[in-house]
Amino acid sequence: MRGTITREAVREAILDATDRRLARFGYKKMTIDELAADAGVGKGTVYLHFSSKEEVVLSHVDRIVERLCVRLEQLAAKDQPAGDRIKAMLVERVVFRLHSVQHYSEALNDVAAAIRPGLIQRRAQHFEREGAILARVLADGRRAGEFKVPRAPEAARALLEATNSLLPYSLSPQELGDPADVARRTGAVADLLVRGLRNLP
Amino acid sequence: MRGTITREAVREAILDATDRRLARFGYKKMTIDELAADAGVGKGTVYLHFSSKEEVVLSHVDRIVERLCVRLEQLAAKDQPAGDRIKAMLVERVVFRLHSVQHYSEALNDVAAAIRPGLIQRRAQHFEREGAILARVLADGRRAGEFKVPRAPEAARALLEATNSLLPYSLSPQELGDPADVARRTGAVADLLVRGLRNLP
Repeated sequence: MRGTITREAVREAILDATDRRLARFGYKKMTIDELAADAGVGKGTVYLHFSSKEEVVLSHVDRIVERLCVRLEQLAAKDQPAGDRIKAMLVERVVFRLHSVQHYSEALNDVAAAIRPGLIQRRAQHFEREGAILARVLADGRRAGEFKVPRAPEAARALLEATNSLLPYSLSPQELGDPADVARRTGAVADLLVRGLRNLP
Repeated sequence: MRGTITREAVREAILDATDRRLARFGYKKMTIDELAADAGVGKGTVYLHFSSKEEVVLSHVDRIVERLCVRLEQLAAKDQPAGDRIKAMLVERVVFRLHSVQHYSEALNDVAAAIRPGLIQRRAQHFEREGAILARVLADGRRAGEFKVPRAPEAARALLEATNSLLPYSLSPQELGDPADVARRTGAVADLLVRGLRNLP
């Protein structure tokens, strides 16, 4: 198939362009025309993939979470006590997102404010995917007698909610500039949570 | 002093007007002129108290947190095991804020997006105040042998961070419309955290 560009490759090129333009110029100044030019396709092709500028940006966020979930699956499959895997996964879900937007600096505020309602809706789906992976590890821990979680999906949701405030969307520019500190703080929360899991009645 | 209006009463009247107008019309459509008229003062008087519209709104948020801290102090002073007080305080910090913006419905998205950078900065101060109250209860629990928290201020920060994602700012309109569910979810996180505190090495 040399010389042909797949539908998937076009989509990826548009999202790559989105990432670069968002980081440099923010949401408002980015146009579909520019994304098309950057990706080497016509404007109509962009609209074949995405219904609007907001949809492109939300799909870009989806892609970050898809890549994160690949990492989470790897951590979930490790040969370690379930609690240790959970701690690593909670830190990873924060750090991975942080690295994905590290180059945004000031633009992140503008992007987050512009797509806030759509993003909040979308996050529900992201958290569901992450929660499903965590719930499997919680069930592992229950089988191994490591903790007595009665309902793994609910516990998974609590673990996500307890670390959601450390995701980039909720951080100040100063905090975004210090990923090591955010990772340390996430580790402190994750440690408390896993101790809690190991102390269920 | 009958008949005189204190500086503090004027400030309160302006903030009360801010609350009503924000809830009904959102941030963009609210003007300083309207706030002055609602509060029965001149526009210049509003500017004696607040430097800008954004500053009025952030002061309104400050006032919610000041009132919350009064409640937290009451809960902190109760004759209960420290862990139980901490659980109640964590739920209260979410539920109190939720009730404070319950009447905003759709307008909250607009307000949150408009003041996002200022709010994120301000929240650092809010969390510090709440953290100081929590740290005292953590120290109580340590003295009582209930848990072995090495550094109470750091543990307080972890408790706040683990419940911050449930504050109104981060919730979807659907979630804002179901405070009982948000309270239940906060309780689940708080329970896990306190179990964790009681399981420190």
